[in-house]
Amino acid sequence: MIRVGILGATGAVGQRFVQLLDGHPAFELAAVTASEDSAGSSYRDAAKWRVSTPIPDDVAEMTVTSTDPDEVPDDVDLLFSSLPSGAAEVVEPEFLEAGYVVSSNSSNARLDDDVPLVIPEINPDHLDLIEVQRDNRGWDGALIKNPNCSTITMVPALAALDQFGLERVHVSTLQAVSGAGYSGVTSMEIIDNAIPHIGGEEEKMETESRKLLGSVGEDGVDWHDASVSASCNRIATIDGHLENVFVETEADPTIDEVAEAFRAAPSQDLPSAPDPLIHVFEDPDRPQPRLDRMVGDGMAIAVGGIQTTDSGIQFNVLSHNTIRGAAGASVLNGELLADRGWL
Amino acid sequence: MIRVGILGATGAVGQRFVQLLDGHPAFELAAVTASEDSAGSSYRDAAKWRVSTPIPDDVAEMTVTSTDPDEVPDDVDLLFSSLPSGAAEVVEPEFLEAGYVVSSNSSNARLDDDVPLVIPEINPDHLDLIEVQRDNRGWDGALIKNPNCSTITMVPALAALDQFGLERVHVSTLQAVSGAGYSGVTSMEIIDNAIPHIGGEEEKMETESRKLLGSVGEDGVDWHDASVSASCNRIATIDGHLENVFVETEADPTIDEVAEAFRAAPSQDLPSAPDPLIHVFEDPDRPQPRLDRMVGDGMAIAVGGIQTTDSGIQFNVLSHNTIRGAAGASVLNGELLADRGWL
Amino acid sequence: MIRVGILGATGAVGQRFVQLLDGHPAFELAAVTASEDSAGSSYRDAAKWRVSTPIPDDVAEMTVTSTDPDEVPDDVDLLFSSLPSGAAEVVEPEFLEAGYVVSSNSSNARLDDDVPLVIPEINPDHLDLIEVQRDNRGWDGALIKNPNCSTITMVPALAALDQFGLERVHVSTLQAVSGAGYSGVTSMEIIDNAIPHIGGEEEKMETESRKLLGSVGEDGVDWHDASVSASCNRIATIDGHLENVFVETEADPTIDEVAEAFRAAPSQDLPSAPDPLIHVFEDPDRPQPRLDRMVGDGMAIAVGGIQTTDSGIQFNVLSHNTIRGAAGASVLNGELLADRGWL
Amino acid sequence: MIRVGILGATGAVGQRFVQLLDGHPAFELAAVTASEDSAGSSYRDAAKWRVSTPIPDDVAEMTVTSTDPDEVPDDVDLLFSSLPSGAAEVVEPEFLEAGYVVSSNSSNARLDDDVPLVIPEINPDHLDLIEVQRDNRGWDGALIKNPNCSTITMVPALAALDQFGLERVHVSTLQAVSGAGYSGVTSMEIIDNAIPHIGGEEEKMETESRKLLGSVGEDGVDWHDASVSASCNRIATIDGHLENVFVETEADPTIDEVAEAFRAAPSQDLPSAPDPLIHVFEDPDRPQPRLDRMVGDGMAIAVGGIQTTDSGIQFNVLSHNTIRGAAGASVLNGELLADRGWL
Repeated sequence: MIRVGILGATGAVGQRFVQLLDGHPAFELAAVTASEDSAGSSYRDAAKWRVSTPIPDDVAEMTVTSTDPDEVPDDVDLLFSSLPSGAAEVVEPEFLEAGYVVSSNSSNARLDDDVPLVIPEINPDHLDLIEVQRDNRGWDGALIKNPNCSTITMVPALAALDQFGLERVHVSTLQAVSGAGYSGVTSMEIIDNAIPHIGGEEEKMETESRKLLGSVGEDGVDWHDASVSASCNRIATIDGHLENVFVETEADPTIDEVAEAFRAAPSQDLPSAPDPLIHVFEDPDRPQPRLDRMVGDGMAIAVGGIQTTDSGIQFNVLSHNTIRGAAGASVLNGELLADRGWL
Repeated sequence: MIRVGILGATGAVGQRFVQLLDGHPAFELAAVTASEDSAGSSYRDAAKWRVSTPIPDDVAEMTVTSTDPDEVPDDVDLLFSSLPSGAAEVVEPEFLEAGYVVSSNSSNARLDDDVPLVIPEINPDHLDLIEVQRDNRGWDGALIKNPNCSTITMVPALAALDQFGLERVHVSTLQAVSGAGYSGVTSMEIIDNAIPHIGGEEEKMETESRKLLGSVGEDGVDWHDASVSASCNRIATIDGHLENVFVETEADPTIDEVAEAFRAAPSQDLPSAPDPLIHVFEDPDRPQPRLDRMVGDGMAIAVGGIQTTDSGIQFNVLSHNTIRGAAGASVLNGELLADRGWL
Repeated sequence: MIRVGILGATGAVGQRFVQLLDGHPAFELAAVTASEDSAGSSYRDAAKWRVSTPIPDDVAEMTVTSTDPDEVPDDVDLLFSSLPSGAAEVVEPEFLEAGYVVSSNSSNARLDDDVPLVIPEINPDHLDLIEVQRDNRGWDGALIKNPNCSTITMVPALAALDQFGLERVHVSTLQAVSGAGYSGVTSMEIIDNAIPHIGGEEEKMETESRKLLGSVGEDGVDWHDASVSASCNRIATIDGHLENVFVETEADPTIDEVAEAFRAAPSQDLPSAPDPLIHVFEDPDRPQPRLDRMVGDGMAIAVGGIQTTDSGIQFNVLSHNTIRGAAGASVLNGELLADRGWL
Repeated sequence: MIRVGILGATGAVGQRFVQLLDGHPAFELAAVTASEDSAGSSYRDAAKWRVSTPIPDDVAEMTVTSTDPDEVPDDVDLLFSSLPSGAAEVVEPEFLEAGYVVSSNSSNARLDDDVPLVIPEINPDHLDLIEVQRDNRGWDGALIKNPNCSTITMVPALAALDQFGLERVHVSTLQAVSGAGYSGVTSMEIIDNAIPHIGGEEEKMETESRKLLGSVGEDGVDWHDASVSASCNRIATIDGHLENVFVETEADPTIDEVAEAFRAAPSQDLPSAPDPLIHVFEDPDRPQPRLDRMVGDGMAIAVGGIQTTDSGIQFNVLSHNTIRGAAGASVLNGELLADRGWL
């Protein structure tokens, strides 16, 4: 078993990490960190547990440490990070200098030339950047990032369509409140309402997508040259980001060819990887957040409503934003790192 | 005062008609019709009143008649229709043959060559089709339609941008449940959920928009040749359709030019017409359905989030779907008919 | 394995039966019935599957029959019924005459003197009424009922407190929309709203509770003589009925004695019976519907907020209304029937 | 016109004060205060306006001052306070020493012997305590409080029933999120959920009710000796507290006598006082928060579902928690003070 830790273990994504690592076949949770205030408390007391499955007994009794390399046992080989990006910017480098491998969900550094931004089924070869990273930074450890929750929902579908020559993407999102963290959206903001703006989200979708779909070159990633325009909305759902995607491609595939491309999207042979990666719905009113966010245990991408239009292809896509879109993505990246011998 | 009636007065849109006509400066409600079952009842008993302002006392005591030209007093000059389209298809022609002028919110016949589909501020000249209609059909009356609620939300903004050469539109909607009528969306379908499909809605947006933006020619309307692709979603809001619009134009206007174009959209000098027609928000997180659907007493269009993108312009638009998008639209069309001498 | 069937298998509760019977250790699903219209279709086509776990493949391929004793195989030993009460009133006797044992969730006949209304952990001895029932009606089969979802949530807690001499109960409910069936509550009724009335529900809580807590006498059940007053509300939750209970007892137990009484509530050694039956929360803001409805796989009762007041005891109680409160209750009753040799 | 000010004018209740004072026949808004950070800003910039009617232009341009007696003009005669109770405890006495009359919605000091806790229609004579207060404290000003939003919803109905000899009250509340302030309840807490606990709320209902229904004696108020037990729940509504009330009285009134008692509840001849005070609904499923919270412009009490039970009377009651339950209550108390010559 590989011993792992969670940086920022008490927050909403931190709790998801604990849930997903409970009973994991290859990872054994050995360290949970949080802010100074919580250091010394039991995890049960430090985390106000809000996941709908019970808190695992052994984790509940673990002692929370501060988020400091000196406080994490040396035999921990892999750290998952769900720190706020401001904190991560400061703390992650400290752990990397201390030699830890960090699979991070935090939004800082995702676009850095020498930081792999990875979805295992899409661009596992981007891990090669770790060599560049170590050369550049003199780290013993390694930093790998997963993309933003709204990006990761869409990119597997875009990757499947790139065989037709991806040129232009317009996307509108209907995002769940859990994406903003436990206190990110107040009830006064969202009951009988929707908010047509999520700070920074549109830019993340536009940039991260192009990096993910790019290819590794001499000095980093050559970004894909498709244009991506996003409009991001918050709605009153707990979990599950739903997105309407309009795609223009060089070729003019039929609906059947598009569906077949989605179904043929490659899976990975890793413990948390779903098979199939993309689940295609025939009913035009699916996927729906509450009904379909747990497809593939929350790790698959659900697609439906495929149509052809005057200008290209149109479809809807959904994934679970705190599983495939956050904690599950980092765990899967950790599994990829283990599988490819980086631990 | 012009005496008016409501066909289908007891449903959700019918109740809105009653509310909007209460205290109207030019129209006096003189007839309310419903299905055979309700004929002979008081309006209070026939309508299960669900609007949050009180039922007007005088309407409450009116006797409901069946939806039959023989049952409506002859001195009624104008009828508003919110019948289900199946019923409207049968009944509206009966009233037209009997000489009534009908301002209808029902979706049938909207695309017919000789039926004016009108937003008074956008294409009042389409009323000229009434002459063609009378020639074709031998009616004494006249039939005029307002567009679908999701179409009417977007088209005033598109019209304002046509000065830049409108070429292509992608639009995603976040539509309120009232758009489906009182029982159209169950609570099991929408709590903690969204539905990425509304039957027929996408096609309505694509076709009605192009007819509205077209110009009256010899044999009807020459539709605008912009391409429109829509993706329609139902979310858990009571009233107010929010839409993300991506527009490509020949020219490349700046954000300020776009905002100025919206602010300069012409108003009409009619009792229910808002001034300004389009309200432009500066805050990027506005307009929002619950906060902004009552802008201009529910008759204005709210716009925000204007951005320029690689491929054009992006913005959000909102209107109240059962006021500007349904009953209010028909009332406003009625006011236009009166003003232009068609009654 | 005991072969079982579901009467009314395509509705909301019917789908829960299918979900709960999938992989059941003792029951094998061998028949699914629905209305005449669906007879001959596959279950996949007849049921619009709306449960968030996938439809079991083998059930999906089963052929739906009409709800008629001649259409159900003779080797089926036990039928679960979730028919609307009007239909159940007619059809259930036909199955009973044909010799089937029926564990029914339908509300008809629950108060009949010779029909056992049973919660296995509370009043398993009421099964003795089956002998009376057979004598009275000449049936080879047997009819057993589980109580209404709001009643079954409260009664285990009341039973635990009866050692202190239960005298008077006031209860207010906050009930989930699934309790009304898939289309029972429209979205217009419940978004940003609550409805302080559920037809017939208050009476069910007042009468069923007293029968369940009663003892079997010569001629049926001697009802408990506590008074029960209920006020029932519908709120915007999908699943999970939350109830505020005020209880007056002869004795004056302390908070600790009340909690201990709840914790000591007896479990049953049956496959679907939770252990413990009652889960006591210490946090005053628990149980909550979304977080706690799945306690004990949806079969346990969650209690919290225990306080003593001027007039007695006050606490909150929650259970999953379509599992413990409907399909799960019937399955558990079926397990009790099997265990006690009635099949 | 009486010149008035608002202490804490930028928060949720503060914004309601601004809305309610706009166009008030007797009060002219002359001062708006907020925390140090906002001092010097325009009200438009300091308040993130979230009320669904537009911000009044003249107030938008007012300069916010800090909440300090030296910063408020001397010719302001009456201050409305919606400060958090911690701040109010410190600041309100400073204004009282400086001679201001303060009509406060804050929860501190409500139970003090010499502080009038007033609902004008119920206990206007409690104003007499101001003399005691001035003697005790040496203030030139006067402090008057309105009760908590959940208390004020119920007490008018209880007062109407006291003619039957009020003995015991059990009440369950379904409270709107606005009662907790703009950020008081997160969306993660309340979507598809309810919370059976609101800190301190049950005690407020139990104590404030008894003080309000008490009579002024030599040394303060002799509290009513009825027992009140409350269970308070938060649900996913924006505005409007709904409450299920069970009352036991000495006499046994009929449903008609109860309804008549409610209808006969006295109104007050003050600008914001509704007439009637209590609106009685016949439909058993009313009042409902979204449909009925604006009865009497948000200042009336809506009652429905009257039943008699084994142990007494049962009914439901609703009011708008940020109008009648907060800002409107303070304004009405200010009108009472003006009418009775205390300004």
